[in-house]
Amino acid sequence: MSTVYLIGAGPGNPGLITVRGMQCLASADVVLYDHLVPARLLRYARADAEKIDVGTAAPQPLEQEAICYLLAEKAREGKTVARLKWGDPFVFDRGGSEALFLHEQGVRFEVVPGIPAGIAVPSYAGIPITYPGGGDTLTFIRGHEDDGKTRASIDWASLARLDGAIVCYAGPQQLPHILHALISHGRPSEDSAVLIYNGTLPTQETTLGTLGEITQGLKQSNDRRAAI
Amino acid sequence: MSTVYLIGAGPGNPGLITVRGMQCLASADVVLYDHLVPARLLRYARADAEKIDVGTAAPQPLEQEAICYLLAEKAREGKTVARLKWGDPFVFDRGGSEALFLHEQGVRFEVVPGIPAGIAVPSYAGIPITYPGGGDTLTFIRGHEDDGKTRASIDWASLARLDGAIVCYAGPQQLPHILHALISHGRPSEDSAVLIYNGTLPTQETTLGTLGEITQGLKQSNDRRAAI
Repeated sequence: MSTVYLIGAGPGNPGLITVRGMQCLASADVVLYDHLVPARLLRYARADAEKIDVGTAAPQPLEQEAICYLLAEKAREGKTVARLKWGDPFVFDRGGSEALFLHEQGVRFEVVPGIPAGIAVPSYAGIPITYPGGGDTLTFIRGHEDDGKTRASIDWASLARLDGAIVCYAGPQQLPHILHALISHGRPSEDSAVLIYNGTLPTQETTLGTLGEITQGLKQSNDRRAAI
Repeated sequence: MSTVYLIGAGPGNPGLITVRGMQCLASADVVLYDHLVPARLLRYARADAEKIDVGTAAPQPLEQEAICYLLAEKAREGKTVARLKWGDPFVFDRGGSEALFLHEQGVRFEVVPGIPAGIAVPSYAGIPITYPGGGDTLTFIRGHEDDGKTRASIDWASLARLDGAIVCYAGPQQLPHILHALISHGRPSEDSAVLIYNGTLPTQETTLGTLGEITQGLKQSNDRRAAI
């Protein structure tokens, strides 16, 4: 049996995959990828590799269980499989489920970490997400669970009291709720905040302001894009 | 004037630098690197590139201010400069100071994100640092400030109440204090914990247990290595 590589493709800019990730991708007989994975990365794959879009851009996205079985099946056929995932496979992603499934099925796999959006996107906006003297914590929060169907379960009062940076992965439906929760639990509305769309891509859009200003701005817009 | 690349070299395994980081490194006339940066990465640099060890492995480590001036000076000489940093330049590192200095000096620079140790090291220990249903926060904490001279300033009670994973960057002097603070502020001592040395390297050592067991184990050892 061959190996399944669970590869973090990074947050969008194709140069942000790791050297190890690129090598694994180039060696693969089969490549499975999500819709957020940069299309240009597929150029690293072999021309004769089978490329399967399992994300929402396909005619119909595959269920998570179907993806897991597909990974195992291809490996059992003796094929080297590259599974490309947005960001890092283990940061607010279902890579953990896939790794556990492969482990239970006795399929050999390797996790290749990727740059999480929460790290690179602020960098591309010119923001040092931690700074000497600027707080000793850095917290990522998942703004939604179950693909946006339910709200995140977070102790907002505790989160608001940590003085380091907070990076929120959220879609437009969750974001106003999250900003409101932070302010109402005591995070000063004068704190600096930034809203970023399409991070690390040429289409990146960055709005700088205070927490209060960003919250107000969202109320006035009908923006329906995902943001972190 | 040329460009200074502030490059995240990743947590130790040389395959974990990004493709963009490797390209910038390969183009550099001058390479400045810290002692935690994997030596094998320097093979990507040009044979004729000037390589300067500014970390603790040098006869004497350069002060931060001296590093900043050196970066600017080399760029003003028209040289392309690669500044290799452990992990990501903006995660618990002084990359923010260097970027600000270069900005103030009018020196062109680009930040190339790297994989933070807090992301890759748990992966290499087989641990999905977030998991569907396993908490909606992920918090990194800096276990020390000012190179270990002072203790971190963290609202431990709030941190202990966040139910997601906590990744602590700490040396052996700070670690017992941090574990004690978490438990005494209400984080259950039965919670799973892992202690990792030399993460992502062939010499990686991993100890799995509960928060209580890891704390107890540290008291009984004289281990003086850095850990996250």
